[in-house]
Amino acid sequence: MSTGKSPIRLYVTSDLKADQGVFLDRSQAHYVGNVMRRQVGDPVILFNGRNGEWSGEFQEIKKNAALVHVMELLREQKAEPDLRLYFSPLKKTQTSLVIQKATELGVSEIYPVLTSRTNAEKIRLDKMELQALEASEQCERLTIPVIHKPMKLDQVLTGLEADRTLVFCNERSDEGNTIKALQPFIGSTKVAILIGPEGGFSKEEADKIASLENCVPVTLGPRVLRAETAAISVITLVQSVLGDWQ
Amino acid sequence: MSTGKSPIRLYVTSDLKADQGVFLDRSQAHYVGNVMRRQVGDPVILFNGRNGEWSGEFQEIKKNAALVHVMELLREQKAEPDLRLYFSPLKKTQTSLVIQKATELGVSEIYPVLTSRTNAEKIRLDKMELQALEASEQCERLTIPVIHKPMKLDQVLTGLEADRTLVFCNERSDEGNTIKALQPFIGSTKVAILIGPEGGFSKEEADKIASLENCVPVTLGPRVLRAETAAISVITLVQSVLGDWQ
Repeated sequence: MSTGKSPIRLYVTSDLKADQGVFLDRSQAHYVGNVMRRQVGDPVILFNGRNGEWSGEFQEIKKNAALVHVMELLREQKAEPDLRLYFSPLKKTQTSLVIQKATELGVSEIYPVLTSRTNAEKIRLDKMELQALEASEQCERLTIPVIHKPMKLDQVLTGLEADRTLVFCNERSDEGNTIKALQPFIGSTKVAILIGPEGGFSKEEADKIASLENCVPVTLGPRVLRAETAAISVITLVQSVLGDWQ
Repeated sequence: MSTGKSPIRLYVTSDLKADQGVFLDRSQAHYVGNVMRRQVGDPVILFNGRNGEWSGEFQEIKKNAALVHVMELLREQKAEPDLRLYFSPLKKTQTSLVIQKATELGVSEIYPVLTSRTNAEKIRLDKMELQALEASEQCERLTIPVIHKPMKLDQVLTGLEADRTLVFCNERSDEGNTIKALQPFIGSTKVAILIGPEGGFSKEEADKIASLENCVPVTLGPRVLRAETAAISVITLVQSVLGDWQ
């Protein structure tokens, strides 16, 4: 007995298969029942990052939990680009924007990176994870991006795999057209993007990054972009040239 | 007697030439004196959208006005891409984001467009103008984008020049890779981007837009982007293929 509302889309950790019962936790039950006012019989869509996307129906909605009856497979799970974002955390609003937009644009792993000019408020991984989860639910991704613990820039640079292309946003330099700069790397299956803080990397940091063998320095037009804008723009270009925007 | 602070960058309407005195208005004088704590002798950078970018020095800073002595031309004015953004106004925060980012990314004119599913709060052109001005000051643009009065979609479509390429963000369709879709239009000197509201255009609207002769429909990857993310991503791609991100 559907009430005609469009189905809510939720991430769950349980396995998903037909005719399965899946429990929602307290915060999801609250969202479903109190915020979205769904009732028993209403449709719902579930994904878990492993078993594809499934239709389901609410069987019970209580204050502290809810139960979904899983019905049909809507979309098969499929491989997604291995695209990491290394970014210097910014102020709260800007960091949230980067997490949300990186999720929508299809980044698979997000690493906060501490650079010499990083000037972030407290880094709240739990908030970042929640923002990534909510953005994944909304943008119809089949996965949620992994949020990693903050790393120092040096750790990032020494730990990079030899076969990972590193797209280095070097504002204030003049690297020509980014699409052309990326084209020789078509076929690269492991990519990372590195974005500095407001004010950019120090000269020493920039030199060290640029000296890496797999580094592709890019610039983003003649104006000075804020760090969060640079992140969104470079993810867009990388996904369009190397990723899944085909 | 500079205090060593990095110069503030301000938009003024006066003509700019060497050894000229330029008055700042009340709100700029407040910003300069009270917010940024600048003093007589501190350096400042001015631009007006016509005469390039100039260095200057504060000669007087009072409560209601300030006077700048204009010194040297730093950058010549130069032609910028004729790139219009037609967008359906969104909620307040999202609309601000679109204005700020479109400015950074180099859009020359911004038109709010009313579509059948537009669900905007009050459209405040004065706020949009201020956001565009502040973003221009910060991103080192030599111009500020022009903010136009809201127009109905039909007016936009019937008023478009025959030689303006219209990049139509058609989420939920499958137009292939946007870079490839844009490449045949390299050399086009008049471009417009059209972005719908959350929930997209109605089928009737989408059909009408797609039937225009100069229309280039594009999609932005397999996920569902929010309208403000779509705006930032498509401006990035248009500037990279057709614009001034060379």
